[in-house]
Amino acid sequence: MLPHERAKRDMAEARVRTTIDVEQVRNLLFGGQSKWDTHARLLRVVSQDPVFDKSERPFLARKDRYKRAISMTNRIYELRDIHGWSIAETAEALDLIDEELPIHLSSATFDPVFMDQCGPYLREKYGELVVNRGIQGTYLQTELAHGSDVASLETTATYIPEAKEFEVHSPTLTSTKWWAGAAGRTATHGVVQAQLILPGGKSMGPHLFLVQLRSLDDHRLLPGIVMGDIGPKALGGYTTVDNGFARFDHVRISHENMLSAFSQVTEDGRYVKPPHAKLSYGGMMVVRSLLVGKGAWVMAKAATVSIRYCTVRRQGGRSTDGLERQVITYPGVYYRLLPVLSHAYIFIILGQSLLEQMAVMNKQLATGDASMVSEMHLTSCALKILATTMGAQDAETTRRAMGGHGYSEFAAVGRYYANFLPTTTYEGDNFVLDLQIVRGALKAYKSLQSSSFSVNAVAQLPPSSAYLRFLLPQFTTKLSEPDWTDPTQVVVLLERRASAMVGYRAETTDIDASMDNRVSKATIDAYLSVRVRELIESLPQILQPREASVVSKLYTLTLLTLVESGLVDILSFDLLPQNPGDDPCRGLRATINALCTELLPEVIGLTDAFGFTDWELDSALGVHDGSVYEQLWARAQKEPLNAEEPVDGYEQFVKPMLRRGQLLSGTRGERSKL
Amino acid sequence: MLPHERAKRDMAEARVRTTIDVEQVRNLLFGGQSKWDTHARLLRVVSQDPVFDKSERPFLARKDRYKRAISMTNRIYELRDIHGWSIAETAEALDLIDEELPIHLSSATFDPVFMDQCGPYLREKYGELVVNRGIQGTYLQTELAHGSDVASLETTATYIPEAKEFEVHSPTLTSTKWWAGAAGRTATHGVVQAQLILPGGKSMGPHLFLVQLRSLDDHRLLPGIVMGDIGPKALGGYTTVDNGFARFDHVRISHENMLSAFSQVTEDGRYVKPPHAKLSYGGMMVVRSLLVGKGAWVMAKAATVSIRYCTVRRQGGRSTDGLERQVITYPGVYYRLLPVLSHAYIFIILGQSLLEQMAVMNKQLATGDASMVSEMHLTSCALKILATTMGAQDAETTRRAMGGHGYSEFAAVGRYYANFLPTTTYEGDNFVLDLQIVRGALKAYKSLQSSSFSVNAVAQLPPSSAYLRFLLPQFTTKLSEPDWTDPTQVVVLLERRASAMVGYRAETTDIDASMDNRVSKATIDAYLSVRVRELIESLPQILQPREASVVSKLYTLTLLTLVESGLVDILSFDLLPQNPGDDPCRGLRATINALCTELLPEVIGLTDAFGFTDWELDSALGVHDGSVYEQLWARAQKEPLNAEEPVDGYEQFVKPMLRRGQLLSGTRGERSKL
Repeated sequence: MLPHERAKRDMAEARVRTTIDVEQVRNLLFGGQSKWDTHARLLRVVSQDPVFDKSERPFLARKDRYKRAISMTNRIYELRDIHGWSIAETAEALDLIDEELPIHLSSATFDPVFMDQCGPYLREKYGELVVNRGIQGTYLQTELAHGSDVASLETTATYIPEAKEFEVHSPTLTSTKWWAGAAGRTATHGVVQAQLILPGGKSMGPHLFLVQLRSLDDHRLLPGIVMGDIGPKALGGYTTVDNGFARFDHVRISHENMLSAFSQVTEDGRYVKPPHAKLSYGGMMVVRSLLVGKGAWVMAKAATVSIRYCTVRRQGGRSTDGLERQVITYPGVYYRLLPVLSHAYIFIILGQSLLEQMAVMNKQLATGDASMVSEMHLTSCALKILATTMGAQDAETTRRAMGGHGYSEFAAVGRYYANFLPTTTYEGDNFVLDLQIVRGALKAYKSLQSSSFSVNAVAQLPPSSAYLRFLLPQFTTKLSEPDWTDPTQVVVLLERRASAMVGYRAETTDIDASMDNRVSKATIDAYLSVRVRELIESLPQILQPREASVVSKLYTLTLLTLVESGLVDILSFDLLPQNPGDDPCRGLRATINALCTELLPEVIGLTDAFGFTDWELDSALGVHDGSVYEQLWARAQKEPLNAEEPVDGYEQFVKPMLRRGQLLSGTRGERSKL
Repeated sequence: MLPHERAKRDMAEARVRTTIDVEQVRNLLFGGQSKWDTHARLLRVVSQDPVFDKSERPFLARKDRYKRAISMTNRIYELRDIHGWSIAETAEALDLIDEELPIHLSSATFDPVFMDQCGPYLREKYGELVVNRGIQGTYLQTELAHGSDVASLETTATYIPEAKEFEVHSPTLTSTKWWAGAAGRTATHGVVQAQLILPGGKSMGPHLFLVQLRSLDDHRLLPGIVMGDIGPKALGGYTTVDNGFARFDHVRISHENMLSAFSQVTEDGRYVKPPHAKLSYGGMMVVRSLLVGKGAWVMAKAATVSIRYCTVRRQGGRSTDGLERQVITYPGVYYRLLPVLSHAYIFIILGQSLLEQMAVMNKQLATGDASMVSEMHLTSCALKILATTMGAQDAETTRRAMGGHGYSEFAAVGRYYANFLPTTTYEGDNFVLDLQIVRGALKAYKSLQSSSFSVNAVAQLPPSSAYLRFLLPQFTTKLSEPDWTDPTQVVVLLERRASAMVGYRAETTDIDASMDNRVSKATIDAYLSVRVRELIESLPQILQPREASVVSKLYTLTLLTLVESGLVDILSFDLLPQNPGDDPCRGLRATINALCTELLPEVIGLTDAFGFTDWELDSALGVHDGSVYEQLWARAQKEPLNAEEPVDGYEQFVKPMLRRGQLLSGTRGERSKL
């Protein structure tokens, strides 16, 4: 059999080997059959519409990629009208088209910030327009010299009581707004973070103001406003989005244009304080929560592509069938890929549940109840850090596992990576967010300490710091090696690592340079592991025994690799017993390996359960039927560099170089028969 | 002072703070004043020539990037003639222009393979043409379904004695040559790896053949040959290079076109064996060795950009001067950046010394002496793995340390990363090369074992496995905690880790999935650490005391972070004493932190010592004078997306969407004063 035929046979055989009911597991991931049905229905519509065709995408210049992005956005709203899609369906369709759009960043930042904080007047005037896309918003926070550190922003909004107007102004080069999604060329209105200056010059810190940017007649910039696109992004990422800059030269806006849900300036210029400072956190938290699901689906796509390719790719030593081995069967390969698959499952489920909790919190916030805020803040930061750092790393892991072909654009994983990568540094740089996590952990520790670690205080610990209960005296006994197949025991180890490290961090003044990042990781891992244990425990109620068993193993793999990635601290805090001459990690690593080999026959089923179509993945190496070599060949034929013969530039640049070399050599190398 | 003026002041002040003589250290990196002078002279020529202008580069489509690449190549050869550059100067100029060129891949693969293995006939006919660029070569090894595993390649070269010709043929889709640099559109000739088939059908395994691909008159493909570009690469990397595909349909070449230095087919079709199988390794080893220096300079550029930006970027808490802190002063930042700087220094020096050793080996090989081959093979593999894996990781580390702006194309580090990334999977995928390293280590272990670990056998260990001496009985005593400031003691710890792990690996059958990669890392780290200790010891002979002291600290930082990255195995093999209740890593981490803070005032000097001009770095964030905000602003103004007002596509796609939304909402949001 020819190798490219063998590849398709390998894929078909792998699919037969799977023992799980793929649809059952798929419904777990999608939250039920009806959600899957909606997803599949929307997917059919967009994937069959020529506007969303991807075949020319790898070859388009940035200008054309942007134009394609706005054309697709407009088409989605046409389709909404044709098919009568709901707001949720329209949003899902926008996500399905596999492109970062200017409107995505509006929806993720401008929309929630505006809707949560606009107050009744602006809501009445603009609320429907925002929902219906009658205006296009952009959230103008980050400046050239400052990002999420809003207290230091330089843009000012000075209240002029005589005119009942604010004057929005960019006083310096460095106050130029930078990076705002859709600001460059698309947006008509912006919410601007600016230092509120009261009459008399008192600065009240950063507040939000709605500023119309472009004319609704002809899209021209309004007077006093300079805006544009900030240029291409690294790695070809976000090329479709017009992240923009904006400068304001004494731009006047009406008094009502201050977003006033939580603070106001009276017409005569007095400041009215917000009832609760935390009330305005809602928007940022939603964005962070959305990134968890986003990371999960990046992991899912990357794992699917790489696992499929490594299933059909054969290389190296001969296996029992006399053929070269399938690459996925090498320990060095499956050990890298299966944890990514596991992460994808876990973060898909946790991302959904985080959004559900967030919705509850926002309902409570609307009634003035802020009791969920600090816990949700910590939780969403923690999962954002983990899902984005892990998502980027996992995507690159899967790309590299594909060897040379992984570096082709047609492999697609590089594209997933490039677009996802900025999540590690935006909405809070993960290294900076770590410090917030540590601050939260130390606060919980200190309140526990002030209660002298009373059983009562421990019982009241929120989930994000529940691991601190291991500081109680009864838990300070030495741990024996866990039964690695028992999630409960593994979770205890991770919680004890976190409690030991937070306790150490709280009691030491001798902080080394990496400690806070390690402490943060330990507490996040502990929190995650508890959630994973809960997921494992819930499986028998959701899945049939066979499927529950397989998915449970997949979840357990993450627990064990979390332990593995934390071994330095686990060993240095003496949490794993060490017998002379024996490697204390041997049992852990053997269990990971055993779990992987048990899962191997199921991985094609487990990736099929994501429900990806070839159109969605748009990857030569991740095609459903394993026809990877046909795909690479077919796609290369479309490369525009191949259009002219000889290539454009030959006469000008290649020929003269060859002639010069031939003259120098006194030969063309053709004097004998060739 | 305005923030963007403050940034430049910060840079100037940092430069004043440096206590080292930058030129002295620069000469260490360049291997002497005269090499620096040559470098600077070539740099002046190319950076002032408009052909090499980079200002439009971020905005060019791939076709134009390729055309620019061949135009620059041709210009370099024009300049060679104008300035009378030597071969080495011409090669250096080609490297200086900061672009991956088709000709780079020819020079790195085709040229050495051809020149080493062509034999006298082909050398006489083509040698000068290769050197003078009268022909343009491509090395056609990798196929769609196989890469560095040459034994499995499918392309055939069948000898036809009647015609005294070989018939080169691609029997399957998967035998299509893929990835070869310069093959797509540029090359005129290729060296083809193909299975040699003798008359009667016996296959002799892969051999090399010279095939003319394109006409020297008009560059048209010759009959029977189908070639083209394989399409864009991931992350926008190597966009300038026409990595290509090639298929051969019974293409006849002359009998003499078999590269015959080490094996031949007689005219009547008998096979003449090579005298020593290892003789043909030379080419691949040179490529791997070149990657060490390449990785080093990527680290150097990335470290320079990020350290400069983090010096002028101020963020967060207020420092003693009442201003926000310089980002570089945060432990979480300098702890990430300074090791990268250290790696750059070390790999620049080791890369040079590796090439020197390689030249010695090649001279010996030419006389039939292959005694250096196995050690050089191991050494070049080891340093290739380390320099490429570390180089990619370091580049991304420095990019991320720059926060949000690091994701701009104008930051440049994304570009360095994207172009360097494939080195981790080409010339041997690093994960696969790890297995070769382990095989080498086990071979050395077993030969030692068969001598019952005699002192004699230990004394004969080559540098790559010298760490195995710690298996001698006198070294099995428990280690005490090293004095972390003493390189010798730190190196011993790393060597003992390697010996313990190799011993364990050799004696256990219970191999977990990551063990071989960890064993490989341990042996490479041990080898590297010995080399670093030697570098440290050599400093007093090369530098003045002040400079020697600073550079010595910089080198020591790598030793300590190597230990830190290997802590799991160091702890689990019980190589660091553990006192109950005390973190055994505390002293190590405290020393790393102390070293970093001692080095901090020197980092601008240490990065200046790389001698980079702004033109070379081409980074808005890495500019010499700290004018990062002016740079970002100026570069964004050139973005073509900003050229039209309103943006192309507004009438077709944005306006209809807004109108639809306004109609639905029954308002444009303008009914009151706005």
